[in-house]
Amino acid sequence: MPKVKVQISMSLDGYVAGPNQSEEHPLGEGGMDLHEWALALKAWREPHGHEGGEVNESSAVMGEMLENVGAVVMGRNMFGPVRGPWEGHPWNGWWGDDPPYHAPVFVLTHHPREPLQMQGGTTFYFVTDGIEDAIARAREAAGDKDVSIGGGASAVQQALEAGLVDELTLNVVPIFLGAGARLLDGLGDAQLTLECTRAINAPAVTHLTYRVSR
Amino acid sequence: MPKVKVQISMSLDGYVAGPNQSEEHPLGEGGMDLHEWALALKAWREPHGHEGGEVNESSAVMGEMLENVGAVVMGRNMFGPVRGPWEGHPWNGWWGDDPPYHAPVFVLTHHPREPLQMQGGTTFYFVTDGIEDAIARAREAAGDKDVSIGGGASAVQQALEAGLVDELTLNVVPIFLGAGARLLDGLGDAQLTLECTRAINAPAVTHLTYRVSR
Repeated sequence: MPKVKVQISMSLDGYVAGPNQSEEHPLGEGGMDLHEWALALKAWREPHGHEGGEVNESSAVMGEMLENVGAVVMGRNMFGPVRGPWEGHPWNGWWGDDPPYHAPVFVLTHHPREPLQMQGGTTFYFVTDGIEDAIARAREAAGDKDVSIGGGASAVQQALEAGLVDELTLNVVPIFLGAGARLLDGLGDAQLTLECTRAINAPAVTHLTYRVSR
Repeated sequence: MPKVKVQISMSLDGYVAGPNQSEEHPLGEGGMDLHEWALALKAWREPHGHEGGEVNESSAVMGEMLENVGAVVMGRNMFGPVRGPWEGHPWNGWWGDDPPYHAPVFVLTHHPREPLQMQGGTTFYFVTDGIEDAIARAREAAGDKDVSIGGGASAVQQALEAGLVDELTLNVVPIFLGAGARLLDGLGDAQLTLECTRAINAPAVTHLTYRVSR
């Protein structure tokens, strides 16, 4: 049974991006520190065209994150600093001509735009009807495979709040960002039941996987 | 080398107490849910005079929390809803005549009070000079043993911010309280280095232990 899964890096104080996000600092000040563990891995470097890299307890988790993904959902900030209207803004995402998704990607936005076909099997679809519609379309596109919600904080929150997430993996990085985008705010009334199915401690990160239901 | 350690239960969204703390709900609304995993354990029930209880992956963690503790530091809310002045308020803590500490306990307060000797080796000392003084006095009283900071959020934050915590164990409970007392706020500038030394997944809780230094 295909699932909707989230895997996201979070500081110990709960932030997935630091303060003052900008085109220069898309993850906010200090936000890149959340991803150092991943960027050091062979499992990240290889699919992104780089040699070398570490193999450790995180490698399998990174592999899982990328495997069996049939479609991706992401918020507009994750797609880029341009929020539309799109005419005259030739923003095609952060990732160059060949984004690392190799699957349909559904981008939440308030501004309609024609689908954007990139190299390597990635096509960006722009969804203006909210998270439920984006996930429904992604599920359909993914077929037997999983849907991955890439972020950011708001997209993940909305999906959790709507009861549409089956599995949540938090890559907990032991730093304090102090401010920025907090992942798990506003869920006090969401009536979710979580069970931690796995805790893996690795260099510079601890991976906690939760089964989520309502 | 004796250490200053914190072990505290925290919701997945970072709260150690729910909203609307009161004498009736000392841990706020929903806050008791953070401790269900502990209350179910034989390792908790036995020292509190109850029979039965579970033995699972949490048992050793609970044992460590109680062992080798030579002194305790706690915030005023953890001692009780009465914040002083103490004359005419015969509040002697939540725990009855024989509190479960069996050691000197240093209570942060703004109002001086004579030491309060209870049964079973617990004496409450009231410290008006702040967290650094409380920890210094507790270290001296503990001798070769560890100092445990019991909570609440503010006492732990102050101790972390002052660089006085050596080991932090978060008992992460997979619930969302949505509001209340957040443990790890205000630490963005604390310049701490944390390393997760252990992650233990247990029924209804995941124990993450961090070595803390500055």
